[in-house]
Amino acid sequence: MAIVSVVMGSDSDLPVMSLCLNALEKFQIPFEVQISSAHRVPEETAEFARRAAGRGIEVIVAGAGGAAHLAGVIAALTPLPVIAVPISSSPLGGIDALYAMVQMPRGIPVATVAVDGAYNAGLLAAQICAVKEPALRIKIADYKNELARGVREKNEKLQKSGYRQYLQYLQKNRP
Amino acid sequence: MAIVSVVMGSDSDLPVMSLCLNALEKFQIPFEVQISSAHRVPEETAEFARRAAGRGIEVIVAGAGGAAHLAGVIAALTPLPVIAVPISSSPLGGIDALYAMVQMPRGIPVATVAVDGAYNAGLLAAQICAVKEPALRIKIADYKNELARGVREKNEKLQKSGYRQYLQYLQKNRP
Amino acid sequence: MAIVSVVMGSDSDLPVMSLCLNALEKFQIPFEVQISSAHRVPEETAEFARRAAGRGIEVIVAGAGGAAHLAGVIAALTPLPVIAVPISSSPLGGIDALYAMVQMPRGIPVATVAVDGAYNAGLLAAQICAVKEPALRIKIADYKNELARGVREKNEKLQKSGYRQYLQYLQKNRP
Amino acid sequence: MAIVSVVMGSDSDLPVMSLCLNALEKFQIPFEVQISSAHRVPEETAEFARRAAGRGIEVIVAGAGGAAHLAGVIAALTPLPVIAVPISSSPLGGIDALYAMVQMPRGIPVATVAVDGAYNAGLLAAQICAVKEPALRIKIADYKNELARGVREKNEKLQKSGYRQYLQYLQKNRP
Amino acid sequence: MAIVSVVMGSDSDLPVMSLCLNALEKFQIPFEVQISSAHRVPEETAEFARRAAGRGIEVIVAGAGGAAHLAGVIAALTPLPVIAVPISSSPLGGIDALYAMVQMPRGIPVATVAVDGAYNAGLLAAQICAVKEPALRIKIADYKNELARGVREKNEKLQKSGYRQYLQYLQKNRP
Amino acid sequence: MAIVSVVMGSDSDLPVMSLCLNALEKFQIPFEVQISSAHRVPEETAEFARRAAGRGIEVIVAGAGGAAHLAGVIAALTPLPVIAVPISSSPLGGIDALYAMVQMPRGIPVATVAVDGAYNAGLLAAQICAVKEPALRIKIADYKNELARGVREKNEKLQKSGYRQYLQYLQKNRP
Amino acid sequence: MAIVSVVMGSDSDLPVMSLCLNALEKFQIPFEVQISSAHRVPEETAEFARRAAGRGIEVIVAGAGGAAHLAGVIAALTPLPVIAVPISSSPLGGIDALYAMVQMPRGIPVATVAVDGAYNAGLLAAQICAVKEPALRIKIADYKNELARGVREKNEKLQKSGYRQYLQYLQKNRP
Amino acid sequence: MAIVSVVMGSDSDLPVMSLCLNALEKFQIPFEVQISSAHRVPEETAEFARRAAGRGIEVIVAGAGGAAHLAGVIAALTPLPVIAVPISSSPLGGIDALYAMVQMPRGIPVATVAVDGAYNAGLLAAQICAVKEPALRIKIADYKNELARGVREKNEKLQKSGYRQYLQYLQKNRP
Repeated sequence: MAIVSVVMGSDSDLPVMSLCLNALEKFQIPFEVQISSAHRVPEETAEFARRAAGRGIEVIVAGAGGAAHLAGVIAALTPLPVIAVPISSSPLGGIDALYAMVQMPRGIPVATVAVDGAYNAGLLAAQICAVKEPALRIKIADYKNELARGVREKNEKLQKSGYRQYLQYLQKNRP
Repeated sequence: MAIVSVVMGSDSDLPVMSLCLNALEKFQIPFEVQISSAHRVPEETAEFARRAAGRGIEVIVAGAGGAAHLAGVIAALTPLPVIAVPISSSPLGGIDALYAMVQMPRGIPVATVAVDGAYNAGLLAAQICAVKEPALRIKIADYKNELARGVREKNEKLQKSGYRQYLQYLQKNRP
Repeated sequence: MAIVSVVMGSDSDLPVMSLCLNALEKFQIPFEVQISSAHRVPEETAEFARRAAGRGIEVIVAGAGGAAHLAGVIAALTPLPVIAVPISSSPLGGIDALYAMVQMPRGIPVATVAVDGAYNAGLLAAQICAVKEPALRIKIADYKNELARGVREKNEKLQKSGYRQYLQYLQKNRP
Repeated sequence: MAIVSVVMGSDSDLPVMSLCLNALEKFQIPFEVQISSAHRVPEETAEFARRAAGRGIEVIVAGAGGAAHLAGVIAALTPLPVIAVPISSSPLGGIDALYAMVQMPRGIPVATVAVDGAYNAGLLAAQICAVKEPALRIKIADYKNELARGVREKNEKLQKSGYRQYLQYLQKNRP
Repeated sequence: MAIVSVVMGSDSDLPVMSLCLNALEKFQIPFEVQISSAHRVPEETAEFARRAAGRGIEVIVAGAGGAAHLAGVIAALTPLPVIAVPISSSPLGGIDALYAMVQMPRGIPVATVAVDGAYNAGLLAAQICAVKEPALRIKIADYKNELARGVREKNEKLQKSGYRQYLQYLQKNRP
Repeated sequence: MAIVSVVMGSDSDLPVMSLCLNALEKFQIPFEVQISSAHRVPEETAEFARRAAGRGIEVIVAGAGGAAHLAGVIAALTPLPVIAVPISSSPLGGIDALYAMVQMPRGIPVATVAVDGAYNAGLLAAQICAVKEPALRIKIADYKNELARGVREKNEKLQKSGYRQYLQYLQKNRP
Repeated sequence: MAIVSVVMGSDSDLPVMSLCLNALEKFQIPFEVQISSAHRVPEETAEFARRAAGRGIEVIVAGAGGAAHLAGVIAALTPLPVIAVPISSSPLGGIDALYAMVQMPRGIPVATVAVDGAYNAGLLAAQICAVKEPALRIKIADYKNELARGVREKNEKLQKSGYRQYLQYLQKNRP
Repeated sequence: MAIVSVVMGSDSDLPVMSLCLNALEKFQIPFEVQISSAHRVPEETAEFARRAAGRGIEVIVAGAGGAAHLAGVIAALTPLPVIAVPISSSPLGGIDALYAMVQMPRGIPVATVAVDGAYNAGLLAAQICAVKEPALRIKIADYKNELARGVREKNEKLQKSGYRQYLQYLQKNRP
């Protein structure tokens, strides 16, 4: 049964939001994923928000672009923590979504992460779930060690190969 | 019976939004005024939006600051035209409210006016109501003449008095 | 006979502005389309604005980029509601056009939609025309249902296929 | 024993950050408050971050202005969720602190609230603590009702007194 | 007979625009000053623009705030060089006026100076008039010497008095 | 003999600045073109600025990107009017060059045109040269007619072909 | 004999730039202070820059507002490190000065500090001078300890008095 | 033995940061290069910062993108001068990194260069090292001459070939 619900305003947000799902999978946190627009299906969105806590959801992650109201509209109708992912899909490049999400009025907080920062939204959801799950907190600490190992390995490689060779390696393995 | 409904997210928006009411009074357009927050009373706001057309409302004006969702949330639930007034009440000075209002996704337009431009929101509401009321359109054309007269009178005064004396006059009559 | 007039500052704006025309066609609203620059043919633009109401036009939509004066210049000369579409054609990416359109002075409102939001401009024009045409308002309400259906279908597809398969589907059907 | 730790970069941030403390007091959440600069006492800040989880802290709130590194530096050294409050204390008016907090790299999320939005940071901390405390979640739901009642009372007052009298009332009770 | 015409969109722009008049007086350039709004008296503004060259005007200076169309609208109807002064009168602080003036489309240039930079607009007008008046160019070169003398005198004073005493002197002579 | 001098900070600015040269050629204004960096050859740049008026130059056009000082540095050393073209060559997209050019201090004006607006810089130079050359002013008025004809022809084509066919035509003739 | 030269574009910059002088005094670094505008006395500024290294100056600090060219113009003519202080004196609030200083082209670096960050400019100058003066580096390390002590004392005071009493103390001792 | 240490937050910053290494090689300044993230390996980063001065490092250069804390975190723990390179790797295009680096609080300066300006960071490091190495200062002065020669050669080529041929040459030699 899902304890994190990941909602996005449009299926065009899925490529970014799937990074959030990857993070949740990594920590083996049961999740659900929904497309639900605050503007196109306002009543389902409201219904979703009102019912989430009752269904056992602990954290909601909402991703949207432009005048991104999804996170705020959900936050208005649930006592659960809501994480917002501003998506850079409009010609203004995500600043619109960032302002429309982070600048919430007193009384209705939304926990905003970086523009297109969906992976971090998944991690933040995990950190919040860990408040009642000590085992999860250990996994998160381990993940930080894993991040550190990654940086250390890259640095060692750089020290060994020298920067010119590392640059060539980067060019070959470019995504 | 009101044909324009003016909604604002907080009573702290009233000093700005009262300019909209002044414009509607000038054109003798029956209006109502509501405080209704998309975040603090989301269900009343939704109910208000769903019922507005049925109650004979023709145009809705919504003013809010910060992550200003009010206009979008209402627009999602009514076929009526919705006019948005971004209000400069946050430390970001109204750019947040502007982006959160104007950058609406495809399918749910909102007619945005200038930051703190509540008077123009009232005029725009009048222009829209005039679509079915020819007498009102004449009043609007007259208003444009009145505006023009105002500018002409000021210019004449400036030509007569010279700019130095006009500057002194401005300093004395400063608000 | 056209009741909505869609004007753009340059033929290079047509790819964006044609979305507005698509919206008007969808609602079977008779429209005309004009290229008319506030800066290159100022007198025709003024003449167009002065005559629009007399020719039976109910709403004007104006799209332009950069220091986008077209909507404001037209609004100065007509009692009709004017909708502005800021176009992201300059190196500043549309913020210039947004500010040049939305920040109109007291007395001359312009109803601004999102940067490149021409489809919404068409919808807003329809919502305004519906003030005197109840049948059109029903079509707009139906359109909202259609939008909702679209979201619901996508969500169902996502629930059935899972997010990984949906991602693959998106990649295949990328525009 | 504190379960929320509220840290700020300078005592000049206290007037804003005390709103966070007010929110925590309202929900009777035991908290501690610290001045600890990522730049001036980096080692104490690191030590604080490393030890917080072991001391029973569940959530950290960090407020800072300018190139606001405090939240990110703490988040790097704890598995706990970290909430960031950008403070508008520099000549750039808080946009610098917002960007320096919200744009965290992959792997180290920070839950950012509005510029100067310290009250909401306290609420968000409460929502997170409520993940393991059902009684607290009920208090949060009650708080939302209280917010709603506040809006409803203001709206009733406005309906009764009319907007002109309400404006006078606002002017008298101005902070 | 005026050779520079200084136009502003509203009499509230006069305190800023009077600096332009001061500059023109300093160089003894005959000027006229007009209030003429592109939005409120569009036809007079157009008429003014069309006739300016015929009346012997050599340069036009236009100052306006917000969605500042005045300079562009005039430039569209005259072959004369038009100087634009963006005025910081809106809640967006002059960035709106700057973008609305400087980002003119190909074919219709406007010579934009700094936000509220009306004095420099007067100087630029003088520099342009000097193209056909060698005596004026000499005055401008002299003015540069005068500017230089002013800086030198301040620097000498600073060297003599030391910075602490200079600071005290500044505080006493604060405007 | 050149009467307009076009200077750019780097040869990488030439593709943009060549539009200015095209405009000057169109009006048969004799010009010269220079690469001269305020930062890399400061003394040549100063020498150039000091001598320009003496060599018969009437107007200087300076184009640069990033912290674009070229126009200001030249303006400091010549009584001639200086036109500035901000170039969008840095990761900040031209806003840096715009601010670094337009925000000149009192006493040293620079006539700034749009980001990458080099063609308009050429036109503005022509308008300034026309102050002493009536024949040139007529050519500029003719150019405005030509611009108008261009718009009219496009509009006629649009009226005849309909917007769908015009869209196809645009796609075929895309640069 | 001065080893740091502090230059500012106008005496109105002195109140901000005096913080830099305070920092230099604190570290007993011999300094000189100059008013020298890149735009108003370009030749003195150039002369100053060319001669600085020969006079024994090791570091130059330049403060200016608006289109702030001073630091770049000096950096172009000296091999010494140049520190730039953007000053928030224009209606754009210092973003213009920041961009005009920090975005220098390849080949001519300028070391930019925060908007109005003159004290830090003095510290940075000290850090640079310390490259050849080990005793100074020790003083800088001591200063960091002093900063840390200041934070620790404030935190202790806060822990003892509680946040409410600390708030009262702040209000009484407000500058 | 290295006297400049170049640190970057991720190996994805190496293509930009390698320009800094190129500059250091040009001046034959011994350097080391490290990948060390303030967020992923905070303790190694702190250790690195604390030890740098003791190991003979004279200047540190730190490059990072997004909420770029690396330079500030290092500066907090070393008395050495720290140069910051904001990198344009996030959807906000480098403005986030610029603000997160340049807006450091009083007491902890960071010497910020342009967005992606890594080459200049290397030059600035050389200018700082030259404080105690007269031979290096001469090389820097020579480099300025070399820069000047480059500009002069390009200008001569332009004068000889004319701008049209130069444009063709640029197109052929485009990177």
